[in-house]
Amino acid sequence: MTTIKLPLEDVQAYPDHRGIALQMVGVSQVQMPLVILQKDGLKQHVAAKIRLSVDLAKEEKGTHLSRFIIQLNESSKNNDVLSIKLESFLQETRQRLGSQAAQIKMEFPFFYDKKSPVSDFFAKMAYNCAFEAKLLPTDQTQIFMSLEAPIATLCPCSKQISDYGAHNQRALIRVKLFLASQTEQQMVWIEDVIEALDQAASCPVYPILKRADEKYVTEKAYDTPKFVEDVIRDVIGILRDQKGVDGFEVEVEALESIHAHNAWAYHTESMPVV
Amino acid sequence: MTTIKLPLEDVQAYPDHRGIALQMVGVSQVQMPLVILQKDGLKQHVAAKIRLSVDLAKEEKGTHLSRFIIQLNESSKNNDVLSIKLESFLQETRQRLGSQAAQIKMEFPFFYDKKSPVSDFFAKMAYNCAFEAKLLPTDQTQIFMSLEAPIATLCPCSKQISDYGAHNQRALIRVKLFLASQTEQQMVWIEDVIEALDQAASCPVYPILKRADEKYVTEKAYDTPKFVEDVIRDVIGILRDQKGVDGFEVEVEALESIHAHNAWAYHTESMPVV
Amino acid sequence: MTTIKLPLEDVQAYPDHRGIALQMVGVSQVQMPLVILQKDGLKQHVAAKIRLSVDLAKEEKGTHLSRFIIQLNESSKNNDVLSIKLESFLQETRQRLGSQAAQIKMEFPFFYDKKSPVSDFFAKMAYNCAFEAKLLPTDQTQIFMSLEAPIATLCPCSKQISDYGAHNQRALIRVKLFLASQTEQQMVWIEDVIEALDQAASCPVYPILKRADEKYVTEKAYDTPKFVEDVIRDVIGILRDQKGVDGFEVEVEALESIHAHNAWAYHTESMPVV
Amino acid sequence: MTTIKLPLEDVQAYPDHRGIALQMVGVSQVQMPLVILQKDGLKQHVAAKIRLSVDLAKEEKGTHLSRFIIQLNESSKNNDVLSIKLESFLQETRQRLGSQAAQIKMEFPFFYDKKSPVSDFFAKMAYNCAFEAKLLPTDQTQIFMSLEAPIATLCPCSKQISDYGAHNQRALIRVKLFLASQTEQQMVWIEDVIEALDQAASCPVYPILKRADEKYVTEKAYDTPKFVEDVIRDVIGILRDQKGVDGFEVEVEALESIHAHNAWAYHTESMPVV
Repeated sequence: MTTIKLPLEDVQAYPDHRGIALQMVGVSQVQMPLVILQKDGLKQHVAAKIRLSVDLAKEEKGTHLSRFIIQLNESSKNNDVLSIKLESFLQETRQRLGSQAAQIKMEFPFFYDKKSPVSDFFAKMAYNCAFEAKLLPTDQTQIFMSLEAPIATLCPCSKQISDYGAHNQRALIRVKLFLASQTEQQMVWIEDVIEALDQAASCPVYPILKRADEKYVTEKAYDTPKFVEDVIRDVIGILRDQKGVDGFEVEVEALESIHAHNAWAYHTESMPVV
Repeated sequence: MTTIKLPLEDVQAYPDHRGIALQMVGVSQVQMPLVILQKDGLKQHVAAKIRLSVDLAKEEKGTHLSRFIIQLNESSKNNDVLSIKLESFLQETRQRLGSQAAQIKMEFPFFYDKKSPVSDFFAKMAYNCAFEAKLLPTDQTQIFMSLEAPIATLCPCSKQISDYGAHNQRALIRVKLFLASQTEQQMVWIEDVIEALDQAASCPVYPILKRADEKYVTEKAYDTPKFVEDVIRDVIGILRDQKGVDGFEVEVEALESIHAHNAWAYHTESMPVV
Repeated sequence: MTTIKLPLEDVQAYPDHRGIALQMVGVSQVQMPLVILQKDGLKQHVAAKIRLSVDLAKEEKGTHLSRFIIQLNESSKNNDVLSIKLESFLQETRQRLGSQAAQIKMEFPFFYDKKSPVSDFFAKMAYNCAFEAKLLPTDQTQIFMSLEAPIATLCPCSKQISDYGAHNQRALIRVKLFLASQTEQQMVWIEDVIEALDQAASCPVYPILKRADEKYVTEKAYDTPKFVEDVIRDVIGILRDQKGVDGFEVEVEALESIHAHNAWAYHTESMPVV
Repeated sequence: MTTIKLPLEDVQAYPDHRGIALQMVGVSQVQMPLVILQKDGLKQHVAAKIRLSVDLAKEEKGTHLSRFIIQLNESSKNNDVLSIKLESFLQETRQRLGSQAAQIKMEFPFFYDKKSPVSDFFAKMAYNCAFEAKLLPTDQTQIFMSLEAPIATLCPCSKQISDYGAHNQRALIRVKLFLASQTEQQMVWIEDVIEALDQAASCPVYPILKRADEKYVTEKAYDTPKFVEDVIRDVIGILRDQKGVDGFEVEVEALESIHAHNAWAYHTESMPVV
C-alpha cells in the first residue's frame, strides 16, 4: 500500500535551464457549471467547457494544475457571475499561480427565449457562445465574446434565374468580438448580439413555428435573398456601428441545400495583435 | 408583404397512399435546459440535446413537428423533473400527436461531486449521460440509461515485462442499461452507476489531485493493472448483479499511450430486441 | 538502459478465472489506406478508420492487439481489395488470433464521379461509407454496407401555404444495409446505392452547378416537395425491392433552414438479431 | 418542366453599394482526392477537406463558387502534386475569379511509415496535416504547414513522489509552421517534422509494438519524464533551429490519465500578422 513521506517534493518548482519563457500553460477541456448574467438581470446556469492558463517564467519548470481546478470549482460553487467578473477572476488566477499573465476561455450553450414571428409562441433556443479574457503583464485586460448564430439564407441567383422557387438553407454566422471597454456600466449583451445578427439574415430561425409562422418565414426569406457575401457585409456594417465592439472577426458558412459543401466568407477588422 | 388566408391547409394531415407505416418520426438535435433528479434529492439543471419522436400510421402523410418543441419547452419552463417522469411525458406526446408509440432520447453532461482520494477536496466532474425511453403500442415502456465514465487503465503486460514503469492511459467505459423496472421506489441512480464503474478501473480519475493524491493514484494504478478485457469483465460482473439493471451493453475504449489507436472491447446481454 | 531477458512473458495468455467469455475485443480508431472496388472495375484507394476484433474465450485473459495491426498493414501494403474479400480476411483474423468469431468495421469517404444535370460537368463528390462484417462461430458471415447521402428536401407544407417560395435544406439519408448474399457474382455496389437514394430526394445535390444547372435543381426541388416522412417512405420502397438487400436500417435527418434543430425519421426491417 | 431562357443573368456580377471589400469569400468543407509529394519522391494520394477563397472588391456583389470546384476537380483529375505548387494554383484561382488575393487550406490524414523501435516492424500511421497558403495582393505568397503528432508523456512529478510507477498518457503536439521560403530546392517535409516532434516526447507512439518493443517504450518513457511544459519547450527549441521554419504556433495537449480534463500549453513566435 501507498506510504506518504511528507513533504512530497514540488517538482514543478524545480528550476529550468532551457531559458524559454512560455506564453500559456494550464488546463483545457475542463467542464464546470457556471453562471452568466442575462440582459434582463436574471442569472443563467450554463454547462461550460473551460481553458484556464497563465504564462510561465523561463526559470520555472512547471505550473500547478490543481490550483486552476480549485479556483474554477470555488467560483462554480459560489455561483459567481463569471461573465461580468472575468478581470478580477484572472487577477486572482495570476496571484494563486504567481504568474505575470493569465488567460481564460469558456464555451457554453446559451439559452435565449425566442418568440415566433406571427403566433407569438416563446421557446428556448441554444446559441453556442464563448467568453475569452486575457490579463496581460501590463495589467491591461482584453475581453472577447464569441457567438454562433444559425440563420437562413436564400440564394439571390437561384431566385433570379428560376421560374419559381429559390434554394435556401441553414447558415451559421460566427463572430468573435473584441470588447475593449466592457464594463458593468456599458455591457455588450449576448442577447443584443443575437438580435443584431438576425438582422443580417434572409430570415431568422425559430424554435417553434406554427403554420402562420411558416408562411411568414418562407415569404420573408424569398423577399430577402442574400448570398453569404451579403450576410457578411451586413454583419460588418452592424458591428462597425455597434457601441462597445472595438474589433471583430466574422465568418458566415451556408450549408448549401444544392451541394454537399458550404459557401463561406470571412473578414476581420481591428483585432488586437497580441 | 405576406398575407394569411385562414385556415391554412394542414398538409401533414393529407392521406398517404404508399401504405408504409413508419416507426419513428420527429425532431432531433433539439437543445433545451431540463431538470434531472440527483440521488440526494436535489435537482440538477442540465443542458440537453433531445430527440423526440412518434410512430406514423400508414394512412397519414406527416407528423406535426412544432408540437414536439411546444411540449419540450413547457416541460423545461415548468422545471419538470423529466428523468423520473419519462413514461407520463411520452404518454402525453402520444396523445398530442395522435400516435400509437412515442420515443425520447435526451443526452446531457451530468455534474457529479467527486472527492479526491487523500486530500478530500470535492469538485464537480462531468459525465456524459443519456436517458432513452420508448412507449410501445402495447403501453409497455422501456427505459434505458447511458453513461460514459472516464477512468485510468494500466497495462498488465507492460508492467510484467518491464524492469520499471508501466504504460497507462485514460480509458472510457460506456454503458447502456435497460431499466425494465425503473420506478420512483426502486431507482437506478446515475451516481450509483458512476461509483460502480469506478470499481472496475485500474484507478478512477478525479477533478482535483494534490500531490498526496497523485502519489496515491499512481501507486493504486500500478497495483491494479488491467487490460480492457479485465475492465469489461469486471463491469459485466457488476452489471449482472446490479439490482434494477435488466440488460446492458458495455464498451471499453482505452486511449493507448503507446499507440495512436485504441484498445477496445464490447459485450451485450439481455437487451430487448424491439 | 533497457535490457531484454527473453523470453518475455505472454501475459495475455494467462488464464482468467472470472468465467466470462467476451463477444468483441480488439482495436478501434485505426487509420489505414485501403482499396475498394468500384463498379466500373477500377480500384479506389481510401483512407479508412477501422475497428477489428475477435471474441475471447472465458479461459483467456487477453487478446494480442499487435496481430490486428500487422494483418491490416499487410492488407494495406498488398493493395488487397478488401471490400470484396471481407469474409476471407476475417477467417484469417480468426486463425491468427485463435478465436471463434471475428468482426471488422471500416469507415471511409468514397469518391463518386457525379455529373451536373444540365451542363454535364463531372466532379468527385465524397460519400461517407462503411463496410461491416461479422464472421460468426457458426462460420456464417454477415455483411453490412452503410452510406450517408446528402440530398435536398423541399417542404410540402411551406410550398402549399405560402404565396411564393418554399423552405428547403440539405438533408442526410443514412442507410445500413444487410447484404446476406453479397458475392462477387451478385454485388450491391456503393454507386448503385447512391443513385437509388438520389431517387428519393426532392432533388439530388451536386459538386458543380453552373447557372443552367442551378435553375434546374431549384425548379426540380420546387416541383418535388417532400417531408422527411416522404423521403424515408420512398427509401423503404426502394430498399424493399433492391436485389441483394436482405434487411436495412434507414434514417433521414433534414437540417431545417427554418430551425436550429432537425426533422428526423427512422425505420428498420429484417435486420439480423445477432 | 424547367425552361432555360438564355442568357441567364449573372447575379454575382451585379454592383454592390455597401462599399465593403471582403477579405475571403469561397467554398469550405469540399472533399477531394489530392496528391502530396513524399520526401522519398513518391506521391501520396490523400482524401482532403478543402477551403478555397478569394478577396472580393467592394463594387462586386458576389463571387462564382462553381469555379473553385472546377479548378479543384481539374487538379484532382490531373494528379497535380498540389503540396509543391500551392503558389501557382492560387495564381490561377486569382485569375479565374478576377480577384486580387486568393487563399487555400487543405486538411488530410498523411500516412507515414513508422518502424517499431526494437522488432523493426514497419506500418502506416496517420498524422492529421494541413497546408495553408495565401497569395496576397502584393503577389507575395505565405505558406503554412500544420501537423498534429500523437506522442506519450510521462509525468515527472508523479515519478518523483511515487514509490513505483508514474502516470503517463497520450498527448498531442499541434504545430502550425510559417514556411516563408518553401521552395522545391529547400523543402520542409512532413516526414522531417514528424521525426523532429518525436524527439520532444517522453516516448514516440507506434502502430505496431511487439513485446520487446513494449518493454522498450515503457522504460524509455519512464526514463524521460516530461510535463507539457517540457515538451513545448523542447519543440520551441527544435523549431527555432529548424531551417526553413520562419515562424510557428505550437500547442501541446495531454489527455491526462488521472483526470477527465487535459494539461495544455501554447506558444507562438514570428508568425506574420496579416
